[in-house]
Amino acid sequence: LKLLTLARDLKRRKARERQNLFVAEGVRCVEELLRSPLPVRGALVAPQLEEAPRGAALLAELERRQVALQRTSAAEFGSAAETESPQGVIAIAEVPDRSFASIPAGWKGVLLVLDAVQDPGNVGTILRTAAALGAVATAAMPGTVDLWNAKVVRSGMGAHFTHPAFGSTWDELDRFRERDRAVVLGADAAGRQPNSPPDRALLVLGNEGAGLSPDARARANELVGLPLAHGIESLNVAVAAGILLYQLRS
Amino acid sequence: LKLLTLARDLKRRKARERQNLFVAEGVRCVEELLRSPLPVRGALVAPQLEEAPRGAALLAELERRQVALQRTSAAEFGSAAETESPQGVIAIAEVPDRSFASIPAGWKGVLLVLDAVQDPGNVGTILRTAAALGAVATAAMPGTVDLWNAKVVRSGMGAHFTHPAFGSTWDELDRFRERDRAVVLGADAAGRQPNSPPDRALLVLGNEGAGLSPDARARANELVGLPLAHGIESLNVAVAAGILLYQLRS
Repeated sequence: LKLLTLARDLKRRKARERQNLFVAEGVRCVEELLRSPLPVRGALVAPQLEEAPRGAALLAELERRQVALQRTSAAEFGSAAETESPQGVIAIAEVPDRSFASIPAGWKGVLLVLDAVQDPGNVGTILRTAAALGAVATAAMPGTVDLWNAKVVRSGMGAHFTHPAFGSTWDELDRFRERDRAVVLGADAAGRQPNSPPDRALLVLGNEGAGLSPDARARANELVGLPLAHGIESLNVAVAAGILLYQLRS
Repeated sequence: LKLLTLARDLKRRKARERQNLFVAEGVRCVEELLRSPLPVRGALVAPQLEEAPRGAALLAELERRQVALQRTSAAEFGSAAETESPQGVIAIAEVPDRSFASIPAGWKGVLLVLDAVQDPGNVGTILRTAAALGAVATAAMPGTVDLWNAKVVRSGMGAHFTHPAFGSTWDELDRFRERDRAVVLGADAAGRQPNSPPDRALLVLGNEGAGLSPDARARANELVGLPLAHGIESLNVAVAAGILLYQLRS
């Protein structure tokens, strides 16, 4: 068992992509993972897990399911952990095979598109919000932080495990959009207020600083925005995602 | 000039409260501060400021306004900075004198109340959202992170400098509520969907994990909530604040 080496390696995006694996850290995140259908390859456990709230119960559940476990010292665990005060549990699981092609043709509602959104905390919160407000899926375009980055997974609070989120490209988006005749809405301060829910829409959220990319602007059928108080440039991108998804949902 | 010592000291809430001062860190935050009416006591400047985007212009503006400056080494600056890769500028400014009493009696709309909201990033994002969506003010009840904590100020992205945000108590809230006959709305998963904007409402947001406190529940005239997808417990508190404020605004 070389789970510790593997967990350390999976801090790199390239390693995650090559191995098709990711890590979930912390009691709550691993609990959510075990509730999901994603296959778990193994888990690292450090002594402090017994002291964490619900930690002992989680350890018992990992053992009951015969998940491959590697027990490490607190120091070894720290070298694989992403948080500063780790709770002592990291699970390694398989990245699910998802893409635009796996979305059934009869979908209705809003599919979220991330256009170079870069902050891991923002992206995790967006996925959590998309899952909570019933978005059909979330597709991350090039330039967006890797959805399977450990910080994104942690701030997603389990959203990744059930909400169909995946990385993709503008070419794939074009094919999907044509296949299902979906309208592309670009989120932009200059856009109109969203009101009526569309039949099928791709809602594109741009980068925190730069806004929508030329790739997104070229594809947008319409811009949607929220009127803000005088002198305020923008909302946090996760807050904007929440309000737009809530306004657009059917 | 002992601005470096002062800036270090202001990392402690007690010191901020005793001195009635706070720090604003980073180019964007200090730019916003200089645009606001808040009196600036002085600024620390490290060599890397010249390399930061808009850094040289900001330094020139500080000099033009004759703000007291202390130039420090990068290492000294790091001991006062809150971020890991500081941009080389920290300003020290006066906490404005605000309270429920300073809100004019004829107000209409929604005033936000934070009930033990603890994450500095969430609270900063909430203040930014409240300012952008035109909330009347934001009052932080006991148990909430200090609004003038450097992380809260930084994630507020300038909201603190103009949006009337202040710390307060439930007793002061009770007097204010009676004075202006405001309705208290508690944000809770079990609440009804908000639709019609109230005349004057205090919208209370609870703690990230525990929700509304007994103090808040005892005062709520009504609970408001957002229907979430099956199996999802909650939204991020800043996202929930954004959707509720957007729904309730007139």
